[in-house]
Amino acid sequence: MKKSKEFAEALTSSFAPAAYVLNETERRPYEIDWRKLVDQPAEAVLFPSTTQEVSDMVKLCQKHKLAIVPQGGRTGLVAGAVPVQGIPQVIINTRRLNQIRNIDAINNTVELESGVILQTAQEAATAIDRTFPLSLASEGSCQIGGTIATNAGGIHVLSYGSMREQVLGLEVVLPDGRIWNGLRRLRKENIGMDIKQLFIGSEGTMGIITAAAIRLLPRPKKTLTMLAAVKAPDFALETFVRIQNLCGADLTSCEYFTAEGLKLLIDHIPQTALPFTDNHPAYVLLEVMSLDSSADLFARLEPVLETLLADKVVNDMVVAQSENQRLALWKLREGISEAEKAAGGALKHDIAVPISVIPSFIEAVSSEIMRIAPGYKLNVFGHLGDGNLHVNIVPPEGVSLSDLYSGSNPITSCVEKNAMKAGGTFSAEHGIGQLRVSSLMDYHDSVELDLMRTIKKAIDPSWMINPGKVLSHANQTHARHR
Amino acid sequence: MKKSKEFAEALTSSFAPAAYVLNETERRPYEIDWRKLVDQPAEAVLFPSTTQEVSDMVKLCQKHKLAIVPQGGRTGLVAGAVPVQGIPQVIINTRRLNQIRNIDAINNTVELESGVILQTAQEAATAIDRTFPLSLASEGSCQIGGTIATNAGGIHVLSYGSMREQVLGLEVVLPDGRIWNGLRRLRKENIGMDIKQLFIGSEGTMGIITAAAIRLLPRPKKTLTMLAAVKAPDFALETFVRIQNLCGADLTSCEYFTAEGLKLLIDHIPQTALPFTDNHPAYVLLEVMSLDSSADLFARLEPVLETLLADKVVNDMVVAQSENQRLALWKLREGISEAEKAAGGALKHDIAVPISVIPSFIEAVSSEIMRIAPGYKLNVFGHLGDGNLHVNIVPPEGVSLSDLYSGSNPITSCVEKNAMKAGGTFSAEHGIGQLRVSSLMDYHDSVELDLMRTIKKAIDPSWMINPGKVLSHANQTHARHR
Repeated sequence: MKKSKEFAEALTSSFAPAAYVLNETERRPYEIDWRKLVDQPAEAVLFPSTTQEVSDMVKLCQKHKLAIVPQGGRTGLVAGAVPVQGIPQVIINTRRLNQIRNIDAINNTVELESGVILQTAQEAATAIDRTFPLSLASEGSCQIGGTIATNAGGIHVLSYGSMREQVLGLEVVLPDGRIWNGLRRLRKENIGMDIKQLFIGSEGTMGIITAAAIRLLPRPKKTLTMLAAVKAPDFALETFVRIQNLCGADLTSCEYFTAEGLKLLIDHIPQTALPFTDNHPAYVLLEVMSLDSSADLFARLEPVLETLLADKVVNDMVVAQSENQRLALWKLREGISEAEKAAGGALKHDIAVPISVIPSFIEAVSSEIMRIAPGYKLNVFGHLGDGNLHVNIVPPEGVSLSDLYSGSNPITSCVEKNAMKAGGTFSAEHGIGQLRVSSLMDYHDSVELDLMRTIKKAIDPSWMINPGKVLSHANQTHARHR
Repeated sequence: MKKSKEFAEALTSSFAPAAYVLNETERRPYEIDWRKLVDQPAEAVLFPSTTQEVSDMVKLCQKHKLAIVPQGGRTGLVAGAVPVQGIPQVIINTRRLNQIRNIDAINNTVELESGVILQTAQEAATAIDRTFPLSLASEGSCQIGGTIATNAGGIHVLSYGSMREQVLGLEVVLPDGRIWNGLRRLRKENIGMDIKQLFIGSEGTMGIITAAAIRLLPRPKKTLTMLAAVKAPDFALETFVRIQNLCGADLTSCEYFTAEGLKLLIDHIPQTALPFTDNHPAYVLLEVMSLDSSADLFARLEPVLETLLADKVVNDMVVAQSENQRLALWKLREGISEAEKAAGGALKHDIAVPISVIPSFIEAVSSEIMRIAPGYKLNVFGHLGDGNLHVNIVPPEGVSLSDLYSGSNPITSCVEKNAMKAGGTFSAEHGIGQLRVSSLMDYHDSVELDLMRTIKKAIDPSWMINPGKVLSHANQTHARHR
């Protein structure tokens, strides 16, 4: 196309060769989402190395009327950072914006560019005896910008909150190419509108985050990790409630998985260490931390653990006696996604409900799925303490997952509707991307959707930044999946 | 005016007598701000008792082209909830929206209407053995809606965060009268835009908050309260840093005041208990809490307290041995505003800076004030741990405070400019209201102000909700003060 050619010429004359790729072979890895569900072409993939370059590139795209797809580490699960069907698009990937600009142990802040890998940020914090307050499975490859744009959750939300709570300031390139410098690192500022909130969790639909100031936390000095075996979800909930009542924010993680998840691990992950000699229906992984290096966490927890066993809330329990045992317990929880993938995948869901209704929600969904989709198995796991469960449905042998994913299906409806009915959400941490646009339209009322559209139009009137994500637009068609 | 008469007739025919006052005598208390700096008339003061009534009233005001001033407990310090000069306005006061709709010890949430008094909410939380995560001087009269609309801070921000961090969901009447029901009580929800963030801290310029879901926290079981006497701000900072490194989020408060503040207390508050036999230049009030009922907080802190004394970081220290002693220490910090008022008032400022620059900031401001305004005294106090200081300037005898407040003055410029230069803010927790509009215009860049105006126009195109607050509008004049 002539238009593409003009754009390519403008690119090559304005930017260094390291700042873009145009040919298909080099573009391909950036066009496909992590789950390999979406695969649409881009005109080019750009790699700016400075905020000014991002601004220049956005202006160039606007000039050539090309939509922009902001992209980080490509670990998202809802295809929010890859092109959609049917629009000429350019990917702006932030991996070369990878400087830690400043780290400060007095103010407990780090200022870093959006392409910094999460693990790199964690290591920088550790080096000055601080905690970077976000930890999740993809931390080895996800980028800070992506964690902010998706308001990432992970395993420490219970204690530290989601990414939104960690962000003190942002630098953003707006859809018209202007740079907003909101890189403040204050704990308090009330000036009538907290502009950074617009960009956090917006999945790249409001602008491109180029840098952020993030709070750091003191490093815990003691850790106690336990795995409790329980009969059913209500016992898992009771275990969580009693331990949180005792420990408050010192209870940094409370994760849930079931016998089905454990079976997937045993079948597909070599050397899975079985936690108990008996089989149990469900498991709760709990981790308690203390900043007090003289704290005796086991002594603090012993009475409540004894009561949990005496009251038969917990069937059996192991407490990690070493860092290796701790990692082995975590492997059980963190290996489930991988095991599920190795087993052929599942229909994934990411709901949250008020924790008190977790047992009745699981019960309702289980019996309904059994009725409408016999032979399908539930693999429920996730962040029990946040009410956030991944209610994944494993199809029987012979059923193709891509068939399930093509168009809406009664299984997903069952899971999502039950979550909404319970006062919950169909999207707890993964976001909307292009895979959940229809759900958002289905489940949220017209006032809320209208507010969202009004803000989007105000910030991005020509709908150029990440079109087809989050909100549908009159001029675009989008499929649930390719 | 004919217009007023028509509106009055519509009011009386649509609402019960308890829902409005029209005559001047009854309106007066609602028209004057807490600091008695602003006093402008309203056409009427409305008292809706349901969300639907708020919606009906907003629509009625829109129909009659009357601007709306949302109002809570009227304890704000920047005249954000009283009328501005020169526009026909109606006050909608939320005091009759005062139901606690639901409180839940399993999910740790409370759902309450915006007119509930903060202290009532605190007491409801205490009754189920939970903490309501906001505490501030005006808690006996401020309302929940106001604390959300102003993103209130207070004495526990260090540990729990500001009001923004506590809000799980909101119900809001929009400027066009539509009701947005976002009363969710989830810990996690990512749907591309977190609409509630628009209203939190917007000082009533985006809509009227009618109800909220707020998170509750476990109740601390042990408390240790200490007052440290120090030579200078850098020693105060060092004290804070060492204790926070040890205690993290268990350090729930770190407050600062000086010999000047103590002198105001001694002179104006009867029975002020002197904390030390000697006089010291500055004081740090620290409070550490634990959820662990068996915790020995003094034993945990003793080594660091001893080192602070041995290193001469702290000159002297008292540790409260009883609840009465604890309250006496808190009275020193919390009585300062009252003592300052009793002494004739001061030019108030509400800055925040990164904590590491607190000493150099105080030094710079002190020497500059001494130069440009000899005879004026600094009374610096506030939330040291958040970097948020109230740098109040007490004029010498014979200087009228209202003269100082009329128009801009070099003293305020000195304080605010130094804060901005240090990477800080001129508005940490009080907000903009109508008193700081000029400062916002002066100190923030055109990109940020343009974003704020764009969002405001998108949500409130006819600029009907709380005009003259936060942002100036082309069609309105506003004075810094009356």
